[in-house]
Parts: sequence; structure tokens; C-alpha cells
Amino acid sequence: MGKLLVVGSVALDTVRTPFGEVSEVLGGSATYFATAASYFTGVDLIAVVGEDFPEQHVKFLKSRGIDLAGLERRKGETFRWKGEYSHQLNEARTLDTRLNVLESFRPKIPERYCSPDLLFLGNIDPELQLDVLRQVRRPALVACDTMNFWIEGKRDALWRTLKEVDVLIINDGEARALGGNPNLVQVAKEILSRGPKQLIVKRGEYGVLLFNHKQTFGAPAFPLEQVKDPTGAGDTFAGGFMGYLASTGNLSEESYRQAIIFGSVMASFTVEAFSLDRLRALDYKEIEGRFRQFKRLTHFEDIP
Amino acid sequence: MGKLLVVGSVALDTVRTPFGEVSEVLGGSATYFATAASYFTGVDLIAVVGEDFPEQHVKFLKSRGIDLAGLERRKGETFRWKGEYSHQLNEARTLDTRLNVLESFRPKIPERYCSPDLLFLGNIDPELQLDVLRQVRRPALVACDTMNFWIEGKRDALWRTLKEVDVLIINDGEARALGGNPNLVQVAKEILSRGPKQLIVKRGEYGVLLFNHKQTFGAPAFPLEQVKDPTGAGDTFAGGFMGYLASTGNLSEESYRQAIIFGSVMASFTVEAFSLDRLRALDYKEIEGRFRQFKRLTHFEDIP
Repeated sequence: MGKLLVVGSVALDTVRTPFGEVSEVLGGSATYFATAASYFTGVDLIAVVGEDFPEQHVKFLKSRGIDLAGLERRKGETFRWKGEYSHQLNEARTLDTRLNVLESFRPKIPERYCSPDLLFLGNIDPELQLDVLRQVRRPALVACDTMNFWIEGKRDALWRTLKEVDVLIINDGEARALGGNPNLVQVAKEILSRGPKQLIVKRGEYGVLLFNHKQTFGAPAFPLEQVKDPTGAGDTFAGGFMGYLASTGNLSEESYRQAIIFGSVMASFTVEAFSLDRLRALDYKEIEGRFRQFKRLTHFEDIP
Repeated sequence: MGKLLVVGSVALDTVRTPFGEVSEVLGGSATYFATAASYFTGVDLIAVVGEDFPEQHVKFLKSRGIDLAGLERRKGETFRWKGEYSHQLNEARTLDTRLNVLESFRPKIPERYCSPDLLFLGNIDPELQLDVLRQVRRPALVACDTMNFWIEGKRDALWRTLKEVDVLIINDGEARALGGNPNLVQVAKEILSRGPKQLIVKRGEYGVLLFNHKQTFGAPAFPLEQVKDPTGAGDTFAGGFMGYLASTGNLSEESYRQAIIFGSVMASFTVEAFSLDRLRALDYKEIEGRFRQFKRLTHFEDIP
């Protein structure tokens, strides 16, 4: 089993959807990622929280076997995000962002984290992502996320980071913005020509596409009768994806495809409840069960 | 091989997309459907055109082996549709619709069409759809399409028609409008409880979902580097879907799934050029080739 390191945010989220609302609940990209990945492998986490971060959340993350040596606790308040979703659940409307302790976050890698086999650079400033990458021995696999804020505001720095990255995991709107083109196949060619060897495009309720220089893989999202809160779906996807790859140590095309399904499975659980509530109540049998349902969902016989 | 009958529109389309424009070219739901289906099976067509309908289009349809005994030619002008697409190619903006001879269209079924094995009721007034169904011996499979115009304007008549139909093939916006609910799984339950045994939801560039009482099947759309004109994609999908089922005579779940992939293959060709230009230049080897690419696109290994 490979060592998996994630750097990203730990947050307190306030979220409203047509199905309810929650206030100051556990959130953040590193939180969702690490919790999802923890079903497959051990995870080392690098993030920052404020003095106000509830101890129960620390306990929960520890209970998932997540190593919190890299969870810095600083003077000040924890990063807060406030958002809402309409019935069209695919996109959040941000109502308020308070970076707080995240503003001056400079990830420091604890000694025992310095040789990860896999590294996930969550959605933070691309210069910090590169800085993290420089602090560790080159992992077998580096994946990263980003967002429109960096695509628009730090494009050059982002491309420099992407040159060092194996897998870029972004949503379709971000892919189009980065590639400067509405056609995803052309976008993939452009992005793959400039660094990453694999591009994963998340399309929310429509599923996911994987592009590399040789092949394309596509999977629908798992059709759900109840979607309560899409927050964290993308990070949970990445966590399931990298957690599975870390657990097998196999980085073949076939393994990537299975990892994408495991990512989709984890995302499908996340959106069934607010915050990490569904992930808290999950066991590995359910994950395997939904993987098999995914197989049945997408299977068709080849022609002779 | 089963006999396949389609009733729908034959049109002259004027279309503008970011990649070009065409004026008064061959279009219409029955045209796209029958041309796609003709690669798999014989097709009988029922539609109406005006005196101005160019003979070259009749010749083309005949060259595809389509039986035109049911193509009525009437005094007046052929149905015309004018639309445009933005870079977001998923939805057309209708600029002008001239029903012309379609306005007073009352489909009459020629004697030799009266025992179809499969029947596709293209997007026309649901009362006319029901009228057609009453004129034939009950086929083994009846599928139909509709649109928001009928969902809003003739809801009761539409539900009466749907009670008699095996497969409803509509796009996701229409499904949500018909089911009165943003969640597609809930929409499918509602629709399936009121008649059709199968619901196929077309999601344009995002692929397709099949719901029945037992299972759900999902497939992504084929990722294309060039989409020139999405007009007719949905009807071509239906044509490939039903043409394949007619050719095998097998209406099992596995056969439906393959038929959906053949439908997706045909739609993927259609959008690569304006009007039916790509379908004109197609051979069956290319269709099989893309089916196999679809298999590779979506395949992943099950877990032990």
C-alpha cells in the first residue's frame, strides 16, 4: 500500500440547498479528500485550522486513520465558506468566503511526510502547490485540482505547476476556461500538450471523462434518487480515485479506470447527505456494492 | 429482420452554428430517423411534403432503401425550420417555424404498412400519434418522442398516448418538464408508473440514460473533436436504436443496451456535419468501428 499525501483546505461550511441547510459544519477540500481516501489507504494531511476548530472534527479525522501531524493549528479563525445551491444542483453560488488562517498558509511538510508515493495538491494557490511539490521526494503520482480564480488570476504560475503534475482533476467549466475552447476534446489536447499526462474532467451529475495521449474513458455519474448537498463531491471523487490507486500501487490504464469508478462511487455517497455525514456512516461493503452497481449500470455486450 | 415504421416530419432546415450555416437543406425528424435506421433495416416512412420538395431528396431517401409509399405530397409548401446554436451546442434557438403542409397533416397508413414490427412515433401532436397507433396492428415495440410544446399544451392527450407506448425517448429538459421534478430518477419512476415500460433520456453531449422497472443503463456521448451541427442528433439516435432492434428482433435488456450504443454512434456521426451530410457518406464498417470504440471508451474491469 502506497503512502498518500494531501494538501488542501479544512473548513467550516454553511450550506443551503433546496433540501435543508447546515451551519458551520465540517468541510474543506483536504477533509473530503482524506476521508474518502481513508477507505482505501492511509492518508497524511497538510492543512491549517484556527483556534476555533472543534476538537470533535479532529477526533473524527483521526478515527478515519488520517495522520494529522501536518494539520497546523494557528492563531485566528478557521477558513469559512458559505454557499447555496438551487434545484439545478450542479453549481454552487458562493455567498461568503472568509480565508482567515488560510490567507497566510505556507504548507510545511513534516519530516515523516517527505516521501509520499502519491500526492494530491488540492485547490490552493498554484505557487503553493509547486512549493509543496518541491519539498517532497518526487512521488510516483502527483495529481492536482484548481479553480477559475487561479485560472484567471495566476495562469502562468498554474501552467508552471501543471508542467510538474501527472494528473489534472478539474470540472468541465474549469477545463474550458483553462483550454480557452468550448470543445473538451480540443481542450484535452491543449492541456495534455503542456504538461499533465492525464486530464480528468468532472461533469457533476453527468459523470466524468479521462483523457490521456492514447485513450479516452467516460463514465456517467451514478443516478441518485436523492441528492441533498453536492458540496465536496469533486474532492471526494479525487480522494476515492487516489485512495484506490494508492491501495493497489498499480498505475496502469485499467487501474486508472477502476479508480475513476471508485472516485465516482465515493462522490455519489457524499452528495446523499450534508457535510461528510454519509461518509461517516459508510462501510467498505457498501463501496464495493456500489462499484458493482456501476459495472451493471454501464455494461453492454460488444458486437461479434 | 423486423419491419420498422416511422411517422414524423420531413423538413427544409436553415441552420446557423459557430461553424457555418446552411439554407433550406434536408431535415425533419422522420428523415433523420429513417436515414439512420436504414443502415440496419428496411424502413417505411409516413410524412408529408409540399410541391416544392426537391426531387433530389426523394432520390436520396430511396437510395437508402426507405419505402416512401407513405410520403404524401400536398399542395403548398414543405415544413420549414430555422434555428441557430451558440458555442454551447446543446440547445437550439428556434428563429422561425413554418408548419405549412404539416399543419393539416393527418397521417394515413398505406395498406402495406399496416403490420409493422416496430413503430416510431416522431414528435407530432400526441393525438395524431395515438391515431397512427390505432391504424396499425399492435407492433411488438412502439416508441415515441415528444417536445415541451405538447408537454405544456396537450398534457392529457400526451399521457393517453404514453399509456399505449413501450418506450418514451426524450431529452432531459423534456423529461423534467413531463415529470414535474428536477431529479431524473424520481422523474423516471413517475413516468414509468404511468405507461411506458422504458424511458430513454437523451442528454446531448452528456450521453443517455435508460430507465425501466428493473434496471438503469447509462452511457456517455462519444467525445468528438468537431461538432458542426447538432440538428437531428436525437432523431438519429432513435433511428439507430430502433433500426438495430428491428434488425435483431431481440428485445431483451442486453439488446436494448446495445441498441442505445448504436443510437449514440449514429448521433455522433450526424453532428459531425450539417444536415444529413455525414450520414450520406457513411458505411456500416464505420458504424461497427465506432461501436467498438464506444466499448473501449466505457469499459472497466469489475472488482473480484
